[in-house]
Amino acid sequence: METLLLTKAQVRALLRMPDVIDAVEAAFRAFNSDQVEQPDYMGLHLAPKGAEIDFKAALDRAGEMVSLKASSGGFRDNPARFGMPNGMGTVLLFDARSGALACVMDGSLLTGFRTGAAGAVSARALARRDAHRVGVIGTGTQARMQIRALREVMTIETVHAASRSPAGLDAFCADMQGEFGLTVVTGSPEEVAAAADILVTTTRATGVVVRADWVRPGTHIIAIGADQADKQELDPDLFRDARIVVDSQAQCAAKGELQHALRAGTADGLQTELGEVLLGRKPGRQNDTQITIFDSTGMAIQDTTTAAAILTRARAQGIGTSFNFFGQDG
Amino acid sequence: METLLLTKAQVRALLRMPDVIDAVEAAFRAFNSDQVEQPDYMGLHLAPKGAEIDFKAALDRAGEMVSLKASSGGFRDNPARFGMPNGMGTVLLFDARSGALACVMDGSLLTGFRTGAAGAVSARALARRDAHRVGVIGTGTQARMQIRALREVMTIETVHAASRSPAGLDAFCADMQGEFGLTVVTGSPEEVAAAADILVTTTRATGVVVRADWVRPGTHIIAIGADQADKQELDPDLFRDARIVVDSQAQCAAKGELQHALRAGTADGLQTELGEVLLGRKPGRQNDTQITIFDSTGMAIQDTTTAAAILTRARAQGIGTSFNFFGQDG
Repeated sequence: METLLLTKAQVRALLRMPDVIDAVEAAFRAFNSDQVEQPDYMGLHLAPKGAEIDFKAALDRAGEMVSLKASSGGFRDNPARFGMPNGMGTVLLFDARSGALACVMDGSLLTGFRTGAAGAVSARALARRDAHRVGVIGTGTQARMQIRALREVMTIETVHAASRSPAGLDAFCADMQGEFGLTVVTGSPEEVAAAADILVTTTRATGVVVRADWVRPGTHIIAIGADQADKQELDPDLFRDARIVVDSQAQCAAKGELQHALRAGTADGLQTELGEVLLGRKPGRQNDTQITIFDSTGMAIQDTTTAAAILTRARAQGIGTSFNFFGQDG
Repeated sequence: METLLLTKAQVRALLRMPDVIDAVEAAFRAFNSDQVEQPDYMGLHLAPKGAEIDFKAALDRAGEMVSLKASSGGFRDNPARFGMPNGMGTVLLFDARSGALACVMDGSLLTGFRTGAAGAVSARALARRDAHRVGVIGTGTQARMQIRALREVMTIETVHAASRSPAGLDAFCADMQGEFGLTVVTGSPEEVAAAADILVTTTRATGVVVRADWVRPGTHIIAIGADQADKQELDPDLFRDARIVVDSQAQCAAKGELQHALRAGTADGLQTELGEVLLGRKPGRQNDTQITIFDSTGMAIQDTTTAAAILTRARAQGIGTSFNFFGQDG
């Protein structure tokens, strides 16, 4: 019984955004086809202030895989003290037919990719066909991932970007030009919102960053930042007339943007999940003037299908180190 | 950043029962010293009927380690179909100061050892000083582990054993003689209970296996079998006058023997935890005629400290394969 070990460098080489988009779309479809089990995650708070490790697992019955992702974060002293990043990840993949450990891979890069892919899947399902201008509020790693993924499902003409950090904004502009040849127009959050056909929010905000009256009719909003109780980016008034699509009703009601709209009474708690739209069971965008909102909190099944895609590619290309944890004694 | 990989054969060579007993005693002490966090476990039911994978995590603040144990079980077709055991395990150990993945080890053997060790820790704390006769009801792997561990903390004169399986009983007798030079007296559960100074129950029963009037005054009972809702081995009447010690009040009330005593009204729901006895905060055995009961459901922190002891020994002996999941690109 061999387990494949994949390093961060190997995972980076194996991670192809088009594959991840397919894997994440499959995850959303499976989630709404009774093919998925996702137990409540386990979280541990550690001694360094703000540091945590959490564990998320899912079963993909269709793909016959179980994933366990361990993610650490908030270890601020790691770079200086240990020469390590402040957050790391590990993914275990188990064969659901036998329980055998099929793969241990570095999981530091996977979450960023599958979260970017979710935005792209939502845009393909919900954005206007003539959407070409992408606005981003927040210009960190996830903003870059969203652009990387959106490029695969649409033609981006211009990127409009706002950030509270002038240095962060400059670096983002340079990266967009250097990596994708994309010109970035910088501006205030209001200017970015007003210019965008697709508006992506990826901040760590805990209050309204996007006011309802800034957003033009027909905009598709990809709301990434809010994934914990109290995190918030969108004006709850945006939800009143918008077509709201969530990754998971239960998760978004607890910790997504939806929590604030439910509290404000601007959403009814009976949202559509993206998988239902992808499966054709519920409508997506209903006209070109409707505002659509995709509320993304991130699901463990996205890790399962993404990691499985990485494993499949690794096996096909003969990449990775085979290791027998059962040693010589079976 | 190097991660140590340990195979099942290496773990077997590194697992020394005296070390595990020390590790498990440290786990119980830490649990009752506010040094432990154990989130609710995650469980997944898989397609093969009865098959499951569960994930248990704990933080040991004292030892600055986090463990995650993945355990599969109930894959009955594995031996015939895949040439694999019907259950397997994997343990991840993380450095709690950095979140770094310190070790990936096969976890198939660890649960048996740390469960055996818990029985021995309870016997050292709660059994009569002159206890020399051990009775076991149920003669599977865990019965062997209990004897292996008890040998480290007491002198066993005779083992008395009962089993519903004559073949299982024969194999147990042969193993006790062969491995430990111990003579086994076989008998009915009643005869075994009546002969025992320490009575160990390790069956999969879901009803009373040990009747209250069979047990002699002064006996220490190690109740291992009941670790799920509805599993049961002991007559709830045994709890009425016994000194009851649990590993975890919350777990035992939910899924240990205690659940039945609480339902029957023979226990009050204010039990002593073993760590409290070890720390000298609560009394253990109060006289030589009292019956003591240790209700063991198994805690994730036992995995943490046991796996940490294995890792420490592996490093000291230079055993294992060092692997850098961060590859060449840091």
